[in-house]
Amino acid sequence: MAGTWIERDASVVWHGFTQMDAFLRNSPLVIESAEGHELIDVDGKRYLDAISSLWVNTLGHRVPELDQAVIDQLGRVAHSTLLGHGNTTVVELSEALAEVVPVDEPHFVYASDGAAAVEQALKIAFQYWKNEGSEGKTTYMAFGGAYHGDTVGSLSVGGDGFGSSTFDDLRFPVVRAPGFDDPAFIDAAIELLETTHDELAAVVVEPLVQGAAGIRVAPTDGFKDLEASCRDLGVLLICDEVATGFGRTGSLFASEICGIRPDIMALGKGLTGGYLPMSVTVTSGAIYKAFLGEDLGPKTLYHGHSYGGNALAAAVARKHLELIRAPEILANVNDRAEQLKRLLDERVAPLAGVADIRTQGLMCGVELAPGSPGERRGRLVCAGAVARGVLLRPLGDVVVLMPPLTITEPEIERIVEALAESIEEVCAP
Amino acid sequence: MAGTWIERDASVVWHGFTQMDAFLRNSPLVIESAEGHELIDVDGKRYLDAISSLWVNTLGHRVPELDQAVIDQLGRVAHSTLLGHGNTTVVELSEALAEVVPVDEPHFVYASDGAAAVEQALKIAFQYWKNEGSEGKTTYMAFGGAYHGDTVGSLSVGGDGFGSSTFDDLRFPVVRAPGFDDPAFIDAAIELLETTHDELAAVVVEPLVQGAAGIRVAPTDGFKDLEASCRDLGVLLICDEVATGFGRTGSLFASEICGIRPDIMALGKGLTGGYLPMSVTVTSGAIYKAFLGEDLGPKTLYHGHSYGGNALAAAVARKHLELIRAPEILANVNDRAEQLKRLLDERVAPLAGVADIRTQGLMCGVELAPGSPGERRGRLVCAGAVARGVLLRPLGDVVVLMPPLTITEPEIERIVEALAESIEEVCAP
Repeated sequence: MAGTWIERDASVVWHGFTQMDAFLRNSPLVIESAEGHELIDVDGKRYLDAISSLWVNTLGHRVPELDQAVIDQLGRVAHSTLLGHGNTTVVELSEALAEVVPVDEPHFVYASDGAAAVEQALKIAFQYWKNEGSEGKTTYMAFGGAYHGDTVGSLSVGGDGFGSSTFDDLRFPVVRAPGFDDPAFIDAAIELLETTHDELAAVVVEPLVQGAAGIRVAPTDGFKDLEASCRDLGVLLICDEVATGFGRTGSLFASEICGIRPDIMALGKGLTGGYLPMSVTVTSGAIYKAFLGEDLGPKTLYHGHSYGGNALAAAVARKHLELIRAPEILANVNDRAEQLKRLLDERVAPLAGVADIRTQGLMCGVELAPGSPGERRGRLVCAGAVARGVLLRPLGDVVVLMPPLTITEPEIERIVEALAESIEEVCAP
Repeated sequence: MAGTWIERDASVVWHGFTQMDAFLRNSPLVIESAEGHELIDVDGKRYLDAISSLWVNTLGHRVPELDQAVIDQLGRVAHSTLLGHGNTTVVELSEALAEVVPVDEPHFVYASDGAAAVEQALKIAFQYWKNEGSEGKTTYMAFGGAYHGDTVGSLSVGGDGFGSSTFDDLRFPVVRAPGFDDPAFIDAAIELLETTHDELAAVVVEPLVQGAAGIRVAPTDGFKDLEASCRDLGVLLICDEVATGFGRTGSLFASEICGIRPDIMALGKGLTGGYLPMSVTVTSGAIYKAFLGEDLGPKTLYHGHSYGGNALAAAVARKHLELIRAPEILANVNDRAEQLKRLLDERVAPLAGVADIRTQGLMCGVELAPGSPGERRGRLVCAGAVARGVLLRPLGDVVVLMPPLTITEPEIERIVEALAESIEEVCAP
């Protein structure tokens, strides 16, 4: 094929969330391999993966135990259908997940894209009330700035970021509470619940951290009140932990930090440690039981993705769960989170052009002050970090830092230094 | 863990499209491994995989070349993000796909679930017209009996099968043409197009075969007229080849048999030969160009799944495409399809209880006459086949046969014989 790798890429691949006309000017990398926390491009240049390959990687790349889990499963079977039949690896994974998810008597509905896990959660909550004989509970409460994925259902509960309103003709209406940037968002949500609960199948929330909104961190204590209101008023609580799950916030699940036990959870991203597409909707036993009935009857959940419960992904997820439960993993997250916060306060917060820094565990957003119109400071700062060998990607003018859970002390220093130098360069007064 | 494998499964896994209250009574298998065309359960019993593990498997299980492709990619990197960056394996896969897809100047947007590829197709078609300055083209034409997946957007364009109407409050309205069971469906669709094209972003169709509707096969020639009307009237044509793609119908894509070149295609299932979750939306160069514009501007496609373009899945898909292009694969599909049709005519069609047989390539539906109320003949016949070592799964009273593309002559005989014996047993007059 003619052309450089990046030209070849640009001529056939349409990258998500990417303006392809500007793609080649935005310092794109073409990755060929990886080692530990570093990605290696086609020129052999190494980049510290400070965004965990878009919030999915947990223990680094090419983890021998995870590689071996894939290879072992290849020796059994790559995939067998979960529609009406089972697979031993999926059973073992589900049993292992059941030990750790903060959901009562959990049952697991598998898919591959995180958005699909959210869609499953929405549909299960919706049908739950129909199966229970309650009519009229046909919409959801969701929060301003929320992001739950890009399929029409998940986009409907998401906020208006990323041009979602373009698709308003396709989105169903929801009851919208304020976003986490409003300090009174929980009180406002509870007030709204009191007037709208008759029409609500569920409240959908990213517990503790709204990721795509620019790493908006909420106080932990309000979520218990939200949960209590949901229970009192007969509304299900769906926690979307696709981004927050599997250690990112300093606990295995953010719901634990918030002290809540959702009726339904959506999980994805870190589920396989960043190796393979797998997502899962977790429901409580009470929800599950409402779907039991006559074979082929109307209480059945008629929903299922072909590759849901893929055996190779399940094998990785099972081994990953074993590895991530070693106490030193979460201990490292919390130690490195403290170090990161401290270094950002010292080195980055005082810089001209830095408006706000928000962190929870190893999820961190550094918000830049708006530059001149069209300056695209987030882009420029991240390009500067990439030039310094640290892979960052912005959300608008928020630079997101989300290193793997096993990131080391010197690597945290390297990330903060690259970010600080790049901000100094781009935002020089 | 206590209990048998199937009890352990039922206590934690919620299977898609499955009434869990009846699950244990519907002869479920728990698969532990596989070899070639056979699945092996926890008791070591072998089952001929006559449904290609739910329409995904193409070349059998544990294909040495596909296993090796996964292992080789593990030695590079399992996953790196496609949001704003590239991966060499994905570039190579996209270039290889570009050689074979019946789409002009194709560009590839990756996801993992087939439904997500359909959602991407719908959103791209919708935003295309906005980007081109046409307002009001805010819905779609879709067909009766259509199945495009289970997320809210794909469920909206799908027909009313599988209790979809339960979710009517969430589904957006579409213009509905008749299903493939109506011989005049193309004419009716074209007539509808003439009166509704101003509001249509796209027509969405499963070319040639409506799979989930019970393997409804259409005449090939009408699709060209549909395509011509779409072009004349300014409506995009989306072909959902998630089920029909990658050889299942006797050609690499059903669109080829129909002689059409869609503006947008959705692919999944067979893309990785049944190994790993990967789906892709293919768009023409003309569509792609309508999204070019200012960086971070409104023409951008703000859509992207975390694991879209997963490197392990891409490595398998790339090798799979190489293997499936060997001429003997499609030759075998057509030879075995002919054999299957002949044997079904001879051995199954004359049986009491058989209402209709429909085949296209290696997609086949054997429709049973309705039994007594609540008899669930499709279930019983498939259970009988499973007892005979042949894995089948019904769609209501339609028994679907969809063997891998590499199925052998004796295996086709074995499938037909197991089916015939089971029908004789269940439908004895």
